[in-house]
Amino acid sequence: MYIQNKRKILNDPVYGFVTLPSELVYDLIEHPYFQRLRRVKQLGLTDFVYPGALHSRFQHAIGAMHLMGQVLNSLEAKGNLIMEVEREAAQIAILLHDIGHGPFSHVLEYTLLEGVNHEKITEMIMEKLNLAFDGKLNLAIEMFKNTYHRKFFNQLISSQLDMDRLDYINRDSFFTGVAEGSIGVDRIIKMLDIHEENLVVEEKGLLSVETFLNARRTMYWQVYLHKTAISGEVILIKALERARELKSTGQQVDSPKDLEKFLDRKIGLTAFMEEKETLESFLKIDDIDILSCIKTWVNHKDKVLSFLAQSFLNRKLYKIKLSDESPSEKEINKVKEHLLENGINPKDLKYFFHVGSISNAGYVLENSRINILKKSGEVQDIVEASDLPTIKALGKIVKKHYLCWSKDVYLHF
Amino acid sequence: MYIQNKRKILNDPVYGFVTLPSELVYDLIEHPYFQRLRRVKQLGLTDFVYPGALHSRFQHAIGAMHLMGQVLNSLEAKGNLIMEVEREAAQIAILLHDIGHGPFSHVLEYTLLEGVNHEKITEMIMEKLNLAFDGKLNLAIEMFKNTYHRKFFNQLISSQLDMDRLDYINRDSFFTGVAEGSIGVDRIIKMLDIHEENLVVEEKGLLSVETFLNARRTMYWQVYLHKTAISGEVILIKALERARELKSTGQQVDSPKDLEKFLDRKIGLTAFMEEKETLESFLKIDDIDILSCIKTWVNHKDKVLSFLAQSFLNRKLYKIKLSDESPSEKEINKVKEHLLENGINPKDLKYFFHVGSISNAGYVLENSRINILKKSGEVQDIVEASDLPTIKALGKIVKKHYLCWSKDVYLHF
Amino acid sequence: MYIQNKRKILNDPVYGFVTLPSELVYDLIEHPYFQRLRRVKQLGLTDFVYPGALHSRFQHAIGAMHLMGQVLNSLEAKGNLIMEVEREAAQIAILLHDIGHGPFSHVLEYTLLEGVNHEKITEMIMEKLNLAFDGKLNLAIEMFKNTYHRKFFNQLISSQLDMDRLDYINRDSFFTGVAEGSIGVDRIIKMLDIHEENLVVEEKGLLSVETFLNARRTMYWQVYLHKTAISGEVILIKALERARELKSTGQQVDSPKDLEKFLDRKIGLTAFMEEKETLESFLKIDDIDILSCIKTWVNHKDKVLSFLAQSFLNRKLYKIKLSDESPSEKEINKVKEHLLENGINPKDLKYFFHVGSISNAGYVLENSRINILKKSGEVQDIVEASDLPTIKALGKIVKKHYLCWSKDVYLHF
Amino acid sequence: MYIQNKRKILNDPVYGFVTLPSELVYDLIEHPYFQRLRRVKQLGLTDFVYPGALHSRFQHAIGAMHLMGQVLNSLEAKGNLIMEVEREAAQIAILLHDIGHGPFSHVLEYTLLEGVNHEKITEMIMEKLNLAFDGKLNLAIEMFKNTYHRKFFNQLISSQLDMDRLDYINRDSFFTGVAEGSIGVDRIIKMLDIHEENLVVEEKGLLSVETFLNARRTMYWQVYLHKTAISGEVILIKALERARELKSTGQQVDSPKDLEKFLDRKIGLTAFMEEKETLESFLKIDDIDILSCIKTWVNHKDKVLSFLAQSFLNRKLYKIKLSDESPSEKEINKVKEHLLENGINPKDLKYFFHVGSISNAGYVLENSRINILKKSGEVQDIVEASDLPTIKALGKIVKKHYLCWSKDVYLHF
Repeated sequence: MYIQNKRKILNDPVYGFVTLPSELVYDLIEHPYFQRLRRVKQLGLTDFVYPGALHSRFQHAIGAMHLMGQVLNSLEAKGNLIMEVEREAAQIAILLHDIGHGPFSHVLEYTLLEGVNHEKITEMIMEKLNLAFDGKLNLAIEMFKNTYHRKFFNQLISSQLDMDRLDYINRDSFFTGVAEGSIGVDRIIKMLDIHEENLVVEEKGLLSVETFLNARRTMYWQVYLHKTAISGEVILIKALERARELKSTGQQVDSPKDLEKFLDRKIGLTAFMEEKETLESFLKIDDIDILSCIKTWVNHKDKVLSFLAQSFLNRKLYKIKLSDESPSEKEINKVKEHLLENGINPKDLKYFFHVGSISNAGYVLENSRINILKKSGEVQDIVEASDLPTIKALGKIVKKHYLCWSKDVYLHF
Repeated sequence: MYIQNKRKILNDPVYGFVTLPSELVYDLIEHPYFQRLRRVKQLGLTDFVYPGALHSRFQHAIGAMHLMGQVLNSLEAKGNLIMEVEREAAQIAILLHDIGHGPFSHVLEYTLLEGVNHEKITEMIMEKLNLAFDGKLNLAIEMFKNTYHRKFFNQLISSQLDMDRLDYINRDSFFTGVAEGSIGVDRIIKMLDIHEENLVVEEKGLLSVETFLNARRTMYWQVYLHKTAISGEVILIKALERARELKSTGQQVDSPKDLEKFLDRKIGLTAFMEEKETLESFLKIDDIDILSCIKTWVNHKDKVLSFLAQSFLNRKLYKIKLSDESPSEKEINKVKEHLLENGINPKDLKYFFHVGSISNAGYVLENSRINILKKSGEVQDIVEASDLPTIKALGKIVKKHYLCWSKDVYLHF
Repeated sequence: MYIQNKRKILNDPVYGFVTLPSELVYDLIEHPYFQRLRRVKQLGLTDFVYPGALHSRFQHAIGAMHLMGQVLNSLEAKGNLIMEVEREAAQIAILLHDIGHGPFSHVLEYTLLEGVNHEKITEMIMEKLNLAFDGKLNLAIEMFKNTYHRKFFNQLISSQLDMDRLDYINRDSFFTGVAEGSIGVDRIIKMLDIHEENLVVEEKGLLSVETFLNARRTMYWQVYLHKTAISGEVILIKALERARELKSTGQQVDSPKDLEKFLDRKIGLTAFMEEKETLESFLKIDDIDILSCIKTWVNHKDKVLSFLAQSFLNRKLYKIKLSDESPSEKEINKVKEHLLENGINPKDLKYFFHVGSISNAGYVLENSRINILKKSGEVQDIVEASDLPTIKALGKIVKKHYLCWSKDVYLHF
Repeated sequence: MYIQNKRKILNDPVYGFVTLPSELVYDLIEHPYFQRLRRVKQLGLTDFVYPGALHSRFQHAIGAMHLMGQVLNSLEAKGNLIMEVEREAAQIAILLHDIGHGPFSHVLEYTLLEGVNHEKITEMIMEKLNLAFDGKLNLAIEMFKNTYHRKFFNQLISSQLDMDRLDYINRDSFFTGVAEGSIGVDRIIKMLDIHEENLVVEEKGLLSVETFLNARRTMYWQVYLHKTAISGEVILIKALERARELKSTGQQVDSPKDLEKFLDRKIGLTAFMEEKETLESFLKIDDIDILSCIKTWVNHKDKVLSFLAQSFLNRKLYKIKLSDESPSEKEINKVKEHLLENGINPKDLKYFFHVGSISNAGYVLENSRINILKKSGEVQDIVEASDLPTIKALGKIVKKHYLCWSKDVYLHF
């Protein structure tokens, strides 16, 4: 008898075919909470610089789930026991690991919320889904929270070499067209193994890991911290701040109902805990809500808000200057004078320039280390295991400062 | 002395680097009319089926401009004279060839407008830009309208083997991940030549052309006419029609101001001609406006509108059945009964099912033929030149009928 | 405890990593009979036209084995039972399916041997290896000979959609750079299923299969039957025939000892059966032997042999003309006259021109059909199942005639 | 009138189409000296490890010529003047830059010759061709020898960022399948510029250059210095040394005539200078001659030579151990004892083991530096210009020692 193939197959431009491993996974993907990720771009405003970078969190989450399947196959083939329930749980955990991301992913994380990172929200949503799915997500949540005793599962979800990073470096490289960020995912996956329930890299994989770290660094500087995208982010954040200020003084600023809550004030953890509707609303907002605000605000009677919205919509970005030192008072004052000369109201100055800094620290200072399993059976930190001179160098934190300001403001005021 | 490189370079995941050939091209791309294309997806709702297909008209237009540069280089190298002004004009014409596309490209072309196709609007916008750019687009417009005497320029913009098709087949294949649609663009370009000011294919390029035609057909059936995307389109169109009906009976249906005009009634050519603001408004609407309506309408008190919006937003699509013959009365009646049994009001039935047809005719029946330049110097239509048995077969029109309906409606009413 | 990974991994530019599935497979690959395939180019003389096409039978055999693993995984995932011994046997059978190829694969098949095709020799070698490996190849041989009751295994080894074809079309496209020959191997593999122990294609795979057939046809005309390669083949064959003629008249013609047997006379099946050393010698000859002869013969005192060797070595190929009809007596006579005028001895004329024909018949007229499994459960031949107009067209046999001759002969005599 | 396209187009799997820029280039490629490169593998014995690495010097030379065309186009577009004769000369110089390579490229450079590197031979061959082509190679030779006043041409032929390296890193990555070695050739080329007639990298190209240096280092350790290939090289060299020893004692060792000269003794520069036939003979030997010797020697009555030939032919390689320190006397003695115990004659010991070292010094210690053109107009060495921590690290020399020996010798003696 012919057995119907119930396993759904998706086309992914990065990996070709992706097979959904179970009905539960299928149902989770169909759920509106997960479907929302279709409307959250993976790279926020990066498409201002790399027009191809329109890919969504939805694709990334499914890609990471696919890689989880691949790595578990490889680990099994090396003689490690992976139970069927563990496999499904690990795939679900990585599938949902980003479900707490709000509009434009990282861009607005600290503008809409206060003291609530997306990982925290992810946990809340996973618990909510667990209720809806009769506790079937228990093990996935354990893995995600790292309370499951086989530590390597959490390490595959969240560590220096997790399936999250492997997918996003590769995928972001693909969609931006920054070829140097492309990594040999297959190769890295085949180099992973388990040693005393912890994830390790086989010694012969050292070069592959280093190549990966280098690709990641390239992506940081060429993509994730690209100054043009930062300029766009500054404008967007300032627009939201201006809207919030106007509302605080009683002026009308139209916005979708669910987003409104987050414009009235930054939402903190207490609000999420105490008011059930806060999370409900959060689960309804996405890139579309922000963009439709921008489009509406272009016609707002407040000139500052309208200017910010228009600059963003038509990609008339602020000029931005990166430097190794913070910009001097003198430089900043020169910018301020330029703005004042062009008729900016002194109390509105802050909307027309910004001083900030970016750094690759976030990716360097991580608790979890990469461990190398030597042929001798010994496990060593990669920095010690390597005689490669660049590994240490890769760990250095680089911080850059920037000053950005509206140079075209005179056109409008 | 070091000469500053003023030519902007863009990263395109499909072709790698794309160089902007002139300042005029740069300024056109920076113009808000062109920036709008960032917010119009190339493939409408295809990302419902192929999640990677989020690429925009913006990318496609720049890609087509890039290919135009490539083909003109190749034609020059074969000894054809291309003047610098012709080169720029041809690149501008193809850059702007799709600027008249509205939200979701083809999907809503006949819902928002009546008797005005996107080519007509493109012409109007090109004329508008020509005014803004002091007549610098004159030659580009001539080429676009095919009034320029060197016919091959228009053929490179709009024919069976134009740079538009070459880019979109290739690009759509790339972003959907449907590898079979990938074509050897380089190879085809190198096979093109000019004969008596008309575009021809060198005889040795026959197989390449055939492979291209086949890839195109594959893309039609696997992507452009995919039944799941059609189901999504049906729901979106019905939502807009319901909104229009509600408004016509005086009910309030919120929508962005510029879109509102097109919801009040279908706009025809006269409106565009007579009211200057119609085109202005059209130039302000994009995918975001439609999607923000959908998100708002989810909460509309009209249950039909709310149901349609929700189905679309959460991708709960209508069931769709393709067949060679139109669905019989019996089948249609069965669907209607099912809907009535689930409490649908008879006068609202039309919002819950649809009968239609799709066909590859649009791409087959074209005026412009592909001409082969034989080694003997003779020019022949490809169908005659070819001893390849499939060329004729490829020209056959295939029409398919579909019936689609809401099978989950009982969940909601 | 850490379990050592004994499974060898190979780098394949086409598929990335290829894992050797078992120690037996590893040992077979290490065997000198299989190592010989490193020195047999997959595409004979195609690198005369496509310089990248230097890949060996060795790579192809391993690639086909890899695909066999992939397809068996996919078939299992669809609920078909594949036993571990069957899996290994199928991978071995496809690994060894081409082990009977001699120097330059197909090119010399009918020059060195008479009435013994490479499949027959493959069988003899498999039996020989089976002895050396204590009968461990029994099941593989059954599958290869199609005596195993689960017919689909043989169909995966040798049919219209076998892993052999899938690998070589893909691989040859990769190394020649003929992008149009690239096929979505993953996609096709995922469309295969088993129905009553026979290989079938799921109905939704129709387009993929058609794309595959088209790619195959493209490869036939652009690569496998490329006229320049044919011209090279003609010269090589004529050189070997001249050497044989010289030897038959008692002249000395140096050649490696094992190759000598096959130069003395064409070897037939009886020789292989009756003299054990014939097969031994065959297993020692490869491309190197032929090429070293050519290099030696450049200095042979017989001007005809020396001319042929030099033409081949320095790629001074014969001119070749393809046509739909056989060349007329008149054309042939013109060539002969040209040769005679340039001082060719009438009795040597045959070495300086050739009349022949090529056809894609070999790939069209196959016993095994592609069967489609309809959603209704019914199985149909693809020609009937398809409403695609090109399937039938693809089956048409095209035959071309050629005349090739030395046009530069006067330079040398 | 239709102008026939005389420019030949080649298919290259790495770059797609490659156009031959002139008739002179075409004629050079057709010349037997250049055709010989078809029979010299780019990577010597690397296909023992990476079976795909069968590509030839022929392909590499044409690829480098293609990149030279690309970079000159880009430099012109930035406003640098490149004359047509300079363009052709630069393309010819890079096309011929490796024509002095002998069999198996670097592998036998110091076994067949003494004090004559392949660059020296390249020069001699270029002069020889220049005679044959009536002095048309004058400018190319000037560029190659760096006597032409516009220094950047030589830098494009031979420096840290020359078209040679760019092609081979990329090509070797492609054919080995070591994806980490793939570099964004287009990107690097677009970052190059000319400053006071010297090659510089635009400041924004820093990351690209670093990625390139890293890819190069990866290729060194994963490919060029792979221990398995080194083991193969050791065996091949020992076979040739044994043959030479046997001949020196009057024993017969068959080999092709032109190779024989180089087996009789190592050829030094004087021989090349004084005997015209030495270079003639060199221009006739290639991989085939070596391989045919190996195949013949398998049956030689000297057991040592026969063992070495067989080991090589069937890829029964010596065991090899890499270490940071030179192997100790103790280790070496252990190996010797093992060999003696297995019946090796003490005076033949040297053929069964080898102590050596490898290092990436060759690629680090280069005279030519990479210069960065800062936005300020200043030119700086990359090490100073970069705030990237890894640049310095990349320059560190790593040396590894190895001991390799026949562990299976007892099987044969």
